Amino acid sequence: MRRSSRRDSVYQPLPQPGSTDCRRPGRGRKLRTALPRDPSVPPDRRTLKRGNALTAEAANSTRIELTDEEIFAAHEGGKLAIGLTAPLDDKRDLSIAYTPGVAQVSRAINTDPELARQYTWASRLVAVVSDGTAVLGLGNIGAAASLPVMEGKAALFKKFGGLDSIPLVLETTDVDEIIETLVRLRSSFGAVNLEDISAPRCFELEARLIEALDMPVMHDDQHGTAVVVLAALTNAARVVGRELGSLKVVISGAGAAGIAVAEILLAAGVTDVILLDSRGIIDRNRPGLTGIKSAYAARTNPRGVTGGTAQALDGADVFIGVSSGTIPEQMLEKMSEDAVIFALSNPDPEIHPDIAHRYAKVVATGRSDFPNQINNVLAFPGIFRGALDAGAKRITPAMKVAAAEAIAAIAAEDGLAPDHIIPSPLDGRVAPAVAAAVMAAARSDAK
Amino acid sequence: MRRSSRRDSVYQPLPQPGSTDCRRPGRGRKLRTALPRDPSVPPDRRTLKRGNALTAEAANSTRIELTDEEIFAAHEGGKLAIGLTAPLDDKRDLSIAYTPGVAQVSRAINTDPELARQYTWASRLVAVVSDGTAVLGLGNIGAAASLPVMEGKAALFKKFGGLDSIPLVLETTDVDEIIETLVRLRSSFGAVNLEDISAPRCFELEARLIEALDMPVMHDDQHGTAVVVLAALTNAARVVGRELGSLKVVISGAGAAGIAVAEILLAAGVTDVILLDSRGIIDRNRPGLTGIKSAYAARTNPRGVTGGTAQALDGADVFIGVSSGTIPEQMLEKMSEDAVIFALSNPDPEIHPDIAHRYAKVVATGRSDFPNQINNVLAFPGIFRGALDAGAKRITPAMKVAAAEAIAAIAAEDGLAPDHIIPSPLDGRVAPAVAAAVMAAARSDAK
Repeated sequence: MRRSSRRDSVYQPLPQPGSTDCRRPGRGRKLRTALPRDPSVPPDRRTLKRGNALTAEAANSTRIELTDEEIFAAHEGGKLAIGLTAPLDDKRDLSIAYTPGVAQVSRAINTDPELARQYTWASRLVAVVSDGTAVLGLGNIGAAASLPVMEGKAALFKKFGGLDSIPLVLETTDVDEIIETLVRLRSSFGAVNLEDISAPRCFELEARLIEALDMPVMHDDQHGTAVVVLAALTNAARVVGRELGSLKVVISGAGAAGIAVAEILLAAGVTDVILLDSRGIIDRNRPGLTGIKSAYAARTNPRGVTGGTAQALDGADVFIGVSSGTIPEQMLEKMSEDAVIFALSNPDPEIHPDIAHRYAKVVATGRSDFPNQINNVLAFPGIFRGALDAGAKRITPAMKVAAAEAIAAIAAEDGLAPDHIIPSPLDGRVAPAVAAAVMAAARSDAK
Repeated sequence: MRRSSRRDSVYQPLPQPGSTDCRRPGRGRKLRTALPRDPSVPPDRRTLKRGNALTAEAANSTRIELTDEEIFAAHEGGKLAIGLTAPLDDKRDLSIAYTPGVAQVSRAINTDPELARQYTWASRLVAVVSDGTAVLGLGNIGAAASLPVMEGKAALFKKFGGLDSIPLVLETTDVDEIIETLVRLRSSFGAVNLEDISAPRCFELEARLIEALDMPVMHDDQHGTAVVVLAALTNAARVVGRELGSLKVVISGAGAAGIAVAEILLAAGVTDVILLDSRGIIDRNRPGLTGIKSAYAARTNPRGVTGGTAQALDGADVFIGVSSGTIPEQMLEKMSEDAVIFALSNPDPEIHPDIAHRYAKVVATGRSDFPNQINNVLAFPGIFRGALDAGAKRITPAMKVAAAEAIAAIAAEDGLAPDHIIPSPLDGRVAPAVAAAVMAAARSDAK
């Protein structure tokens, strides 16, 4: 069978700021809308800032202040553009890229469908798919309003993974219809990044799509988060001198992220995991549990703890918050010595890092203005890149664990410390390392 | 209501050959597959050719010889790439393009859906949609094999219209399912270019999609061809000193293109049109006519001619071939003096131009190696650009006629002649002129 020469290829050059090649008309034009405006900010603040780009290091401790004006100006006309990979300047170019030349390529794929992998962009194209039901902290805002987020995600795929991707937002929230739609379109792309789809629908949707499409499919809100949490916890355990598997872990929130974090921690050998939802500890004896919570009740809480957050945290080594709630300070008092707190709710962590530090040796959040930012961008570009480069049909648990280990290793290279357990989201070493680890795991899986 | 500042905007800078910005990994790498190879052609012929780019003028009379090797090499990895319209270099960029900044934009669109037009790429994005049922001369080759053609089309949209577009190929040929799929995805794009969809399904599909999507929708095989034919015929009439409306026109082929050519000629005031299908002249008295052919039987053939091509061509001023058949030379003998022959079947015209010239003053084909190439690329980029820039919900007959007039006017600017009735497909003046004319017609329609 023919193999693409693009396997194992180096990362492609990425668009440069200031390049006009992929720019759209209207970029940089004056904003004509009546959007909220902060008169205290000079209008060219963003331009000035460009001249003195923050280093990631400096940014770690800098609270970034954004005005609505600069945000909306940056989003005008959208954040993506199509580019051409070959010139179209003369009749010869036209005859090659379009008729009559292209007919040769179509005829060849018709004869040998495997050639589509080599002669179209689909085999390396990620569809970023959402129904807009769980968008950031905004909830169910629908397809159209979710599109700016999906465009941003596609931009991150390009910037960090060197992968092309297209946002596809769906006007249906019916799981059957979403699957049916993507199955009909499956020759158009090579992988699906599900995004911002509400629980518990996301679990069924992802599982069924993986079967139906037979290509890499991943709901990033679940597994992207889980991979980065595992990476950070791996290094946090090293910082506090503990074995990962020996930790008592409490996860607050049993939605998309919470379930996936529990899953990956169990896969990584953590045995004492307690999952909490809005009604308290998920325990096999709690009445009324159904679906995925019931499945995880059987696999978690081995000590049979009952009650709420306070009971769960009694003696716990690790707290991972992936809810939108807050944790009263006094509940942290009974955590073990050298505890670890990941308060990941955004923009308001379950516990403010300054308070968390009173009870924990290692603290992480989802925010860019505190150390140890847990950011999915560390995971998904490299995971999809590695899966696609390997020609994998699935993103397996082993590939996710390998991704987490690769992320952890990059931070460890620079020396671990309580305020350095995870690389910066802008660290250019991460995605290639993750992709390589995922590719190796994929090939190992395939053996 | 807010208006996008991108209306009436100038055409954006287009990707330059040699730019690395939108290049993909693997481009320019050695082709490893065992594809057919012509040993008489040096492997770097394409590279050499690049150094001496043909002018469009010179190319008009040059038969372009392509080797499979250079065709396949040019298509490797596909022809499209995603580009970013803003930098993503520091935490500030990330905070603007993605979280937390993007939430402001999503929230605003959720409150006022009209803002999606301004702050996403969808409002200017063309979905190039095919089910692969009538691809070039290859017939029903399916979704995956049609993708190289759709990528090429998207590249042409970018190059000539400055429009972003994404290819979406569908694994269903059911009209209801295609409509349902695109309706579910409708927030993802701003217009639909249907492509290579077989007749008669294409007529129903297009008509129903226009209603269902409420955005510009056009099957290019129908209307793109028709617009360029009308442009060419307008100038051919000038060259032979006739009024367009006085011409007796014979159209051979009643598929997607033939029906659309008949429609636009009727809209432009031609009254004597005879349509032929594989069974002969379509006449209201012919038994067994159904659907769209029956509708056109009622509007064409006013002289009630019966029979086949020979009968239709007796006394005809214009022959337009959009079938895949051939016309015996002797049938042309009874055409009127100063006849016009458009033999558009590709790659083999219904009549070879050298023979056609014995009987006609003006001859056009679909081929780039003869004068007067009828090429859809003269129409669709400007039509969609104009419709989108105008915020039009429909591509109306008036907009199509305006597009044809604009194309005809460009050729007339340079002086009309029997071998110059239509601009070169590479003429950079065409798409902006078509877009402006279509926009003006859209605004006139809206009044």
